[in-house]
Amino acid sequence: MPLTPEQRAEIDAQRADARQTLRAVAEGMEAHLYTAYPVLDHGFVRVIDYMGDDAAICQAARVSYGKGTKSVSGDEGLIRYLMRHWHSTPFEMCEIKLHVKLPVFVARQWIRHRTANVNEYSARYSILDREFYIPAPEHVAAQSEVNNQGRGETLTGEEAARVLDILKTDAARCYDNYEAMISQEGQKGLARELARMNLPANIYTQWYWKTDLHNLLHFLRLRADIHAQYEIRVYAEEICKLVADWVPFAWRAFEDYRLGGAALSGKALDCVRRMIRGEAVTRESSGMSAGEWREFQEVIAG
Amino acid sequence: MPLTPEQRAEIDAQRADARQTLRAVAEGMEAHLYTAYPVLDHGFVRVIDYMGDDAAICQAARVSYGKGTKSVSGDEGLIRYLMRHWHSTPFEMCEIKLHVKLPVFVARQWIRHRTANVNEYSARYSILDREFYIPAPEHVAAQSEVNNQGRGETLTGEEAARVLDILKTDAARCYDNYEAMISQEGQKGLARELARMNLPANIYTQWYWKTDLHNLLHFLRLRADIHAQYEIRVYAEEICKLVADWVPFAWRAFEDYRLGGAALSGKALDCVRRMIRGEAVTRESSGMSAGEWREFQEVIAG
Amino acid sequence: MPLTPEQRAEIDAQRADARQTLRAVAEGMEAHLYTAYPVLDHGFVRVIDYMGDDAAICQAARVSYGKGTKSVSGDEGLIRYLMRHWHSTPFEMCEIKLHVKLPVFVARQWIRHRTANVNEYSARYSILDREFYIPAPEHVAAQSEVNNQGRGETLTGEEAARVLDILKTDAARCYDNYEAMISQEGQKGLARELARMNLPANIYTQWYWKTDLHNLLHFLRLRADIHAQYEIRVYAEEICKLVADWVPFAWRAFEDYRLGGAALSGKALDCVRRMIRGEAVTRESSGMSAGEWREFQEVIAG
Amino acid sequence: MPLTPEQRAEIDAQRADARQTLRAVAEGMEAHLYTAYPVLDHGFVRVIDYMGDDAAICQAARVSYGKGTKSVSGDEGLIRYLMRHWHSTPFEMCEIKLHVKLPVFVARQWIRHRTANVNEYSARYSILDREFYIPAPEHVAAQSEVNNQGRGETLTGEEAARVLDILKTDAARCYDNYEAMISQEGQKGLARELARMNLPANIYTQWYWKTDLHNLLHFLRLRADIHAQYEIRVYAEEICKLVADWVPFAWRAFEDYRLGGAALSGKALDCVRRMIRGEAVTRESSGMSAGEWREFQEVIAG
Repeated sequence: MPLTPEQRAEIDAQRADARQTLRAVAEGMEAHLYTAYPVLDHGFVRVIDYMGDDAAICQAARVSYGKGTKSVSGDEGLIRYLMRHWHSTPFEMCEIKLHVKLPVFVARQWIRHRTANVNEYSARYSILDREFYIPAPEHVAAQSEVNNQGRGETLTGEEAARVLDILKTDAARCYDNYEAMISQEGQKGLARELARMNLPANIYTQWYWKTDLHNLLHFLRLRADIHAQYEIRVYAEEICKLVADWVPFAWRAFEDYRLGGAALSGKALDCVRRMIRGEAVTRESSGMSAGEWREFQEVIAG
Repeated sequence: MPLTPEQRAEIDAQRADARQTLRAVAEGMEAHLYTAYPVLDHGFVRVIDYMGDDAAICQAARVSYGKGTKSVSGDEGLIRYLMRHWHSTPFEMCEIKLHVKLPVFVARQWIRHRTANVNEYSARYSILDREFYIPAPEHVAAQSEVNNQGRGETLTGEEAARVLDILKTDAARCYDNYEAMISQEGQKGLARELARMNLPANIYTQWYWKTDLHNLLHFLRLRADIHAQYEIRVYAEEICKLVADWVPFAWRAFEDYRLGGAALSGKALDCVRRMIRGEAVTRESSGMSAGEWREFQEVIAG
Repeated sequence: MPLTPEQRAEIDAQRADARQTLRAVAEGMEAHLYTAYPVLDHGFVRVIDYMGDDAAICQAARVSYGKGTKSVSGDEGLIRYLMRHWHSTPFEMCEIKLHVKLPVFVARQWIRHRTANVNEYSARYSILDREFYIPAPEHVAAQSEVNNQGRGETLTGEEAARVLDILKTDAARCYDNYEAMISQEGQKGLARELARMNLPANIYTQWYWKTDLHNLLHFLRLRADIHAQYEIRVYAEEICKLVADWVPFAWRAFEDYRLGGAALSGKALDCVRRMIRGEAVTRESSGMSAGEWREFQEVIAG
Repeated sequence: MPLTPEQRAEIDAQRADARQTLRAVAEGMEAHLYTAYPVLDHGFVRVIDYMGDDAAICQAARVSYGKGTKSVSGDEGLIRYLMRHWHSTPFEMCEIKLHVKLPVFVARQWIRHRTANVNEYSARYSILDREFYIPAPEHVAAQSEVNNQGRGETLTGEEAARVLDILKTDAARCYDNYEAMISQEGQKGLARELARMNLPANIYTQWYWKTDLHNLLHFLRLRADIHAQYEIRVYAEEICKLVADWVPFAWRAFEDYRLGGAALSGKALDCVRRMIRGEAVTRESSGMSAGEWREFQEVIAG
């Protein structure tokens, strides 16, 4: 359970406090505001604030005085045009602020996306909670044999049990010792900025993370991808649902042009043209490496 | 007059359309939304959207579940602490989107602040309006004799009249010729992306400009400064008023620590300490250059 | 002629002054250093400095202690892999610094690429030279009838002559008046920061521009593209030649995966798969808009 | 010992391989290239590459054709002027690339400086080494009683011994279990991207980190500060020495205007002016909070 009763009460209070505004309002997003959507065993994602909607993208693209909307169909067409031609600046005119609770090893991947604003819970100032990510049994997987940075089939039996036992036991012991070191009962107590170094990377942290829609979509393209590590992908997938309700036109364009599309190299395009003409194309005649050819076959097969 | 009746009607329609939201609302900013505040002879600044308020700065600094407000006085104290110690990330959690109409030579200075999102009116796609900045007589100034990149005393008499006449005449002629080149009556008409090159830098352009509060304050520190060129400073000053109503605690901290403060060098601090002890300090004994010493004297004199 | 004899002498002096370094050296780039390659009628691009080479990309990807090179063929394969899978950070480990002389209206497009460092010649501090871009006759083109932000066929005859005459005459007159306003003979002289507003957008400016290889390639993808405005495209094309000599592996991967490739949408991929199976696909059955379909046909035709 | 014999040999090979270049060369930095300067018990900082020198700062500020140097004394004066007036863009024209080995909890602080390029050693792809930061006894400190996010006096006796014992024992056990989980002897072996979550935050990681001089100085101002956590401050201090040898003019200006200087608020300036006039100023009459007043007293006392 990611939230305490007090935290739930604070969130309920925020959701009960509707006010008037003259700003653009995205009804689809209002329905999600503040609610903590669970991710992994103790994590969550919740929207704290947003700026703009589909119409705001068009309004900026047109540098318009009013709402910038000519017609609903006109807006969707414009957004598709902007997405197709990599006109990214109008998408930057929407902004989102999230509160995320996540394991440290996920946070370390996440923060490599630098065009964002971040305030993380300070373990110099505060004491971290005793909450660790322990994978569900179906996610305890072996090292992949084809992908050096991925995972393969699920571990089972004794090996899986041993892994889960290690993760739980080491986390518990490290946290016990963290508490023992900072305790001020009968001793001075180690500085928190030092004691935290004893905590393993599956401990949960949390942050406020704010970014614009263009950079968010870039994050989602990489992190909602099937090759992303499962533990960050589930966060990305949860955010995808929020974006789909926030800016539905932009989301559909993104799904078609980015998530569902593919970038073909010059060599791949050449193969496609030959195949459409009915030619048989082999890896040898394609000029591609083994890896490229395998990936090309996957794209063509769908 | 910067706005047409149609544009005014669009703005009025936006101001009449209040809706419900669960987001943080800054009443001081709601009062300004969409209204075009005139700047220079044809320009304006207007707020299109904003995210967050003073409480949102504290909420992010505390990574809190609820509103993040302990007490109003606690919030102001925290904001002053954050500003004093250069903790910039909580201020990045507020965002503002402006629609600005401004002369091209001002836009060229403005855009050097790179941490912002911009959509500018496209002179490849659209035809620019016949609107040029012509300085008011009291702002037609001579080159400064002490500051190589500033202006000195106001020009008067025939010289001033000649300047104004040149600016008006050249602008009008260049625009006439711009229109003549793109006209499609009796000719093909030059491409707009080429014709625009004939327009002088006092023509007005407009853009949507979005940035976070931290970067906005940095912009204001440099551009609302007395050494900034007058024509960009008046935009900065107008934005200052908006910020003061949007996030009053942050604004007051900014006024005290940045606008009203000064950065003293190690040498200057040393002089201050000696002067407080009653020593007489001269430029020679200060170790400063002539320029530094003059600036130091201004800071000390207040 | 973009350079004065004094400037040529300064460049020659720089090219004559070889020194020892322990840093990575790209011989292909050493051959270009400082040389001003002419672009348009008065502009140029010249490399002032660079950091890294192909091996440096691999070294960073491997976080290695030594040169990071296993073998030349291994390096090219790794670079192709990184490019194909959008691993952009190793490309950010190379940096380039250019000195560019370019018309103001080109500079205004260029600077929208914000992830770069810029120092522009200051027209507040200095007096601009009397140099204006006047298109060669073959580049004086009509507004496009299919592309609202492009140009179509070349203007000829009297219309072309009239355009060139206007551009030259207005530039000359505006510059004459600029000089007259700032002159301090028999008058005070208008401040340079004001006088510059009388200068049209085809006047030349210059700047130092520094960026990393990843962002440079992104710039080149957009600006060396056939849809980019001719006057910025020629700068991009000149830079392409420099990059090809600087980091030949990265360049070839970029050519194959970006310049020569294409991003297909989900709908387009679906059409491709059907076409390869021998199905006839029409716009109606593709689900695409007219614009998308036209662009898709161009990609398929090659 | 942070380096293996093989790593030392690779570094020696790099230092032995001098080549010719036409680029700006900073002799002070050439002397440091590639050498690993030890930091903490297993970490290091080493310069992999650099771009520019003091003259390059001036050259960019002047947008010059040649070396940009008028005279050595002129250059230092210009650099001091630029630093004093917050003209940051010329400093951005120098770039540095570092290879750093550092504990994960230090890396997590460090990466909050977002305007930089980073390639970190991948624990998805590779197996981390058994190297953990264990503080020297004199750095095992209690939580500060005045600063909620700092440390106070050094722990001694049994408490200190217990802390060091915990840190060593937990690190060893977690690493043993990490190895046991990924082992492929007699079992499939857990995916590395999962196993790494068992490792505590004092394990060492390493990265290539590249930034420009302006952002580097900002980093140093915050992290070489006495209030920064000791474990990141020692990295900053080591980098300070490198910068002092790389760009001595910029370094001295930075020391005087930033490290040795102080930002005074409007209230503090007012107090200073009164004190110079001989008035007695109290906290009550200063208008400052207790915290501000204490910090002001420290600045004034020197």
